[in-house]
Amino acid sequence: MSVQLSPLHPHHDGSPLHVSNAAPALGETVSVRLRVPADAAAADGSPIGPLAWVGTRSNPNREPRFAEASVVETTDGWAWWQAEVEVENPVHGYRWLLVGADGRQHWLNQLGLSATETRDRDDFRLVAHEPAPAWAASSILYQVFPDRFGRSSAADARPAPDWAFPAEWGDPQRLDPPYRSSQFYGGDLDGVREKLDHLESLGVDLLYLTPVFPARSNHRYDASTFDHVDELLGGDDALVRLVEAAHARGIRVIGDLTSNHSGDAHEWFRAAQADPAASERSFYFFRDAEHGGGYESWLGVPSLPKFDWSSAELRRRFIEGPDSVVAKYLQAPFGLDGWRIDVANMTGRLGGADLNAAVRQTIRRTMLDVNPDTILLGESTNDAASDFQGDAWHGAMSYTPFTRPLWSWLLEPGSPGGGGIGFALGRVPTFTGGEFVATHLRFAAEFPWRTRAATMNALDTHDTPRFATHARPGTVPVALGLAATLPGIPVVWAGDEFGLTGEDGEASRTPMPWGSEGSPEVAPVLETYRALLRLRREHPVLATGGIRWLAVGDDTVAFVRESTDASVLVFAARAGATSSFDAAALGSATAADVATALYGDGRLAASEGLVHLESDGPSFTAWLLPGVASPVW
Amino acid sequence: MSVQLSPLHPHHDGSPLHVSNAAPALGETVSVRLRVPADAAAADGSPIGPLAWVGTRSNPNREPRFAEASVVETTDGWAWWQAEVEVENPVHGYRWLLVGADGRQHWLNQLGLSATETRDRDDFRLVAHEPAPAWAASSILYQVFPDRFGRSSAADARPAPDWAFPAEWGDPQRLDPPYRSSQFYGGDLDGVREKLDHLESLGVDLLYLTPVFPARSNHRYDASTFDHVDELLGGDDALVRLVEAAHARGIRVIGDLTSNHSGDAHEWFRAAQADPAASERSFYFFRDAEHGGGYESWLGVPSLPKFDWSSAELRRRFIEGPDSVVAKYLQAPFGLDGWRIDVANMTGRLGGADLNAAVRQTIRRTMLDVNPDTILLGESTNDAASDFQGDAWHGAMSYTPFTRPLWSWLLEPGSPGGGGIGFALGRVPTFTGGEFVATHLRFAAEFPWRTRAATMNALDTHDTPRFATHARPGTVPVALGLAATLPGIPVVWAGDEFGLTGEDGEASRTPMPWGSEGSPEVAPVLETYRALLRLRREHPVLATGGIRWLAVGDDTVAFVRESTDASVLVFAARAGATSSFDAAALGSATAADVATALYGDGRLAASEGLVHLESDGPSFTAWLLPGVASPVW
Repeated sequence: MSVQLSPLHPHHDGSPLHVSNAAPALGETVSVRLRVPADAAAADGSPIGPLAWVGTRSNPNREPRFAEASVVETTDGWAWWQAEVEVENPVHGYRWLLVGADGRQHWLNQLGLSATETRDRDDFRLVAHEPAPAWAASSILYQVFPDRFGRSSAADARPAPDWAFPAEWGDPQRLDPPYRSSQFYGGDLDGVREKLDHLESLGVDLLYLTPVFPARSNHRYDASTFDHVDELLGGDDALVRLVEAAHARGIRVIGDLTSNHSGDAHEWFRAAQADPAASERSFYFFRDAEHGGGYESWLGVPSLPKFDWSSAELRRRFIEGPDSVVAKYLQAPFGLDGWRIDVANMTGRLGGADLNAAVRQTIRRTMLDVNPDTILLGESTNDAASDFQGDAWHGAMSYTPFTRPLWSWLLEPGSPGGGGIGFALGRVPTFTGGEFVATHLRFAAEFPWRTRAATMNALDTHDTPRFATHARPGTVPVALGLAATLPGIPVVWAGDEFGLTGEDGEASRTPMPWGSEGSPEVAPVLETYRALLRLRREHPVLATGGIRWLAVGDDTVAFVRESTDASVLVFAARAGATSSFDAAALGSATAADVATALYGDGRLAASEGLVHLESDGPSFTAWLLPGVASPVW
Repeated sequence: MSVQLSPLHPHHDGSPLHVSNAAPALGETVSVRLRVPADAAAADGSPIGPLAWVGTRSNPNREPRFAEASVVETTDGWAWWQAEVEVENPVHGYRWLLVGADGRQHWLNQLGLSATETRDRDDFRLVAHEPAPAWAASSILYQVFPDRFGRSSAADARPAPDWAFPAEWGDPQRLDPPYRSSQFYGGDLDGVREKLDHLESLGVDLLYLTPVFPARSNHRYDASTFDHVDELLGGDDALVRLVEAAHARGIRVIGDLTSNHSGDAHEWFRAAQADPAASERSFYFFRDAEHGGGYESWLGVPSLPKFDWSSAELRRRFIEGPDSVVAKYLQAPFGLDGWRIDVANMTGRLGGADLNAAVRQTIRRTMLDVNPDTILLGESTNDAASDFQGDAWHGAMSYTPFTRPLWSWLLEPGSPGGGGIGFALGRVPTFTGGEFVATHLRFAAEFPWRTRAATMNALDTHDTPRFATHARPGTVPVALGLAATLPGIPVVWAGDEFGLTGEDGEASRTPMPWGSEGSPEVAPVLETYRALLRLRREHPVLATGGIRWLAVGDDTVAFVRESTDASVLVFAARAGATSSFDAAALGSATAADVATALYGDGRLAASEGLVHLESDGPSFTAWLLPGVASPVW
């Protein structure tokens, strides 16, 4: 697959440079702007030439409507066209149309430029649903698996549970049954609290805890109750202490709920099993004897019985209203700042039933009622577009738009272990830079801009091998640099910053190697993490700015994030290479004297109307550029 | 936009060659087959080489599931791989994955082959909803606008209505207000019945009548009641007579309902306006005074007030149950064979409300209850994919997958008048053959196969200019040939077969020029229509067979429709040109002695491992080939 990108394509995205209001009410009119360079290129690279008409095509109630644009200003060689778009549906799609004096039509949507008619699904979108909190897109997320992060002294006094195989912190992991999922290191929430210095030193400001409810495994995705925090983690009080301490440092904390299933030891499931007349019976899918008995469960795993969301009582107890589980932990004394929802993709779906939209919207409504300043992330590890249009989930924990293309570009060819991250058959195919960008755009293009900005850019997670395990030498900074500079929330899976490796999700749940921070192996990795996350934090344009792709090659990708205040030029290379593009793409900002190196050792030079980006080997480089001269709104 | 097609790509589609059961029940397992040629080509044209794994990737409840395939037989140089797919959701997507011994992944979906991960939306689909009747895909549809088709002697006795400007059959059309929509030629249903010989001579077997209910315009899309057929058309009895006479000739008849709006003279709307307490008040969107008063209407046209489908009483009267309008005309004494639904795309949609799925599903449920052997077509003139996944509409009256790309390929460059057919700003862009095919596939790929097979392939309709008006010389047979041989229902808009032209939808509603059939201008056009529709009728593979694209060029496209009984090779050229492709694509069938010319004057030759298709000018040519040697199911 090739990707048709030109730095001289007309440009639009959902950022504040181009959209006057990213959180409009239904019926409101939003101004949108298209930037067209003087020598604009068509999809096939030919000059677009003089324009006969420019405007937007919306599709309210599925019937096209056009709005003509006009030039409001020309700055730095780019004409700014503006059109007014009324937001007629909660998710209001629009695309740009440029008609040349030669009669050619040029469509611009979230995939880029096309000479032929495009699909509705790739339109830009204005969303009138309640937006994510303003801090969502600028968050830097750190993921903690409580059993393996930190162990407070209080943990010593707690007896190991009956299902557990206790381990000392320094013990090797055992990945074979029955130890897998049952090896118990005894990390707890006070242990997390005691390490907040570390989080602060990394610059993260959003802590994501995998489940903290009692369960019968070390991962706790098989909850036995949602009524209180696991005593093995320190109980409710420890969570309260952790959240208070984190908040004191400006770090928000979100929890993890399993909306698709509970554990088979859950009090609801036990009540349902014990008595067919119990109100909890309706919470699950029990089959009658003539259909084989038993019950539906996650991928057929009996310890994870699947919820039946047609039960009003289940909704009331779990997700709906101020007394629900969803509401409880967002309120005092807990004060969580949101939820990550496990297996959001399968939630409410079985056979002919699909209650997913109702469940996710109910969860968000409850959150809005008790504390609107909260974030809701949904796990949907593959093509997440259809569920993530802005009606509930703020962002996706998906491997499709970022993680898998990244692995395919940056892992050693033929690397094993792709199964945990969703590669077909566990095999990691090898991509060029062009394939990385094209695949990224293919999946990102179906998200509204603000969903894209709140979607997790993870190198790996607790469910996957660690990226570093089979990364091409020198590419960890390339991968983290992309996570920190592409639209989306950069994610650090605890331990990556220590250079840990792991061949699968279980192996990557390594107890944190505290004390090794100063070692010659760990110190430079830590410094890379601190520096790249600092880059993200110190340049808000990396969270909320627009993005234009400037060049892609087999071994390189280059783009610029843009705002009125500042822009950042990014050059990522997996090997020594040079990438060049038309200097007009950056206007006067390409002058070498206005580009300030922020990170990395790539080189920038301009000559004969071209910008050249050069690298001697794998590298991630960012330069600060002046903000974009754009007309005021 | 380029299209990556190779006649040596691995192939799958929804046809009986490749899918064991196109109408499975939920939970049923369906066998699916992939054909891989000995020298299979990858997306980039390189050889795929030895295969390490072949199978399907389904996505039940949005979680991927793989099924390994095995070779069941190798025939004529192609290996047939078979996998078993359980239909776990009512619309069950799947794609093929081929993993090479070299580690490369090759994904095959409805868009074709890709080296990188693909979207769920482009998956092949198995659909467990009730299917269309078996005759849907093999229908040949003829569209009649009753005021302009035929006028029986009984019409003379009927006084023209108060809104009308009466005209004699031979009078010129007046396109200016107030005549537009009000010029009244007095065609009637007995006038249609009297011309059934003509329909039979064309070989059409599905007659689509635009609305026949009383109204205040010649098009009758502004119904004043659905209670009876317009007396100006002969009333209920005339419809009964027409349907009986058509059925006696093996011609089915469908009506046209406006589910988005009624006329402002509709009895329901008048009752609603007259009395805010009337039950009909809930049928429409009346605004209270503080919101400006008035009511919602179709694109703001006050004579077409929009229905509010949240009204249970409206649903009961119009679409739900045996006493509804939808049911009434499918039953005795009328016996219509289905409905075409007007403005299906906007139906039930307004602001934050979207009841479209509920409305369309209710319509189809009512039809299934009173007569399942009926067809339901929905007008959705742009990207129709999201509504047409098989839960209600059998096929789309859409201009996006076929009509507009066809116009862009076959109209004179710079032709005006594209507005009626949905071209942006009314301008018809000019496409290459490659762009025609790529755009066709882009929009067809999001339909399930059976939806695609029942979607209308129209050159034009009563809402559009006529294709012939600005067609490149000699390309009418090319256009109709493609309509008759691509998947989908070929459509004849009454009058096209007489060579009529018209610059817009109003102008194309020409009174039929009866009596001119033998004229030197008309006779050859009529013969072209008869011959090409006969081709379709006599070769069922053109209705239900698979399709493989063999070659595209600027001026040519070539494909083959395939079944076990027979295959048809199609070559369409808009100018003199030669198109060649690897002979292995057709196996032994490429031998010139087994290809029988069915239509057209293109030439087929095989030499040095290539098949050459040649044309001296615009041409449409079809050859009969032997059926595909495939393993029995």
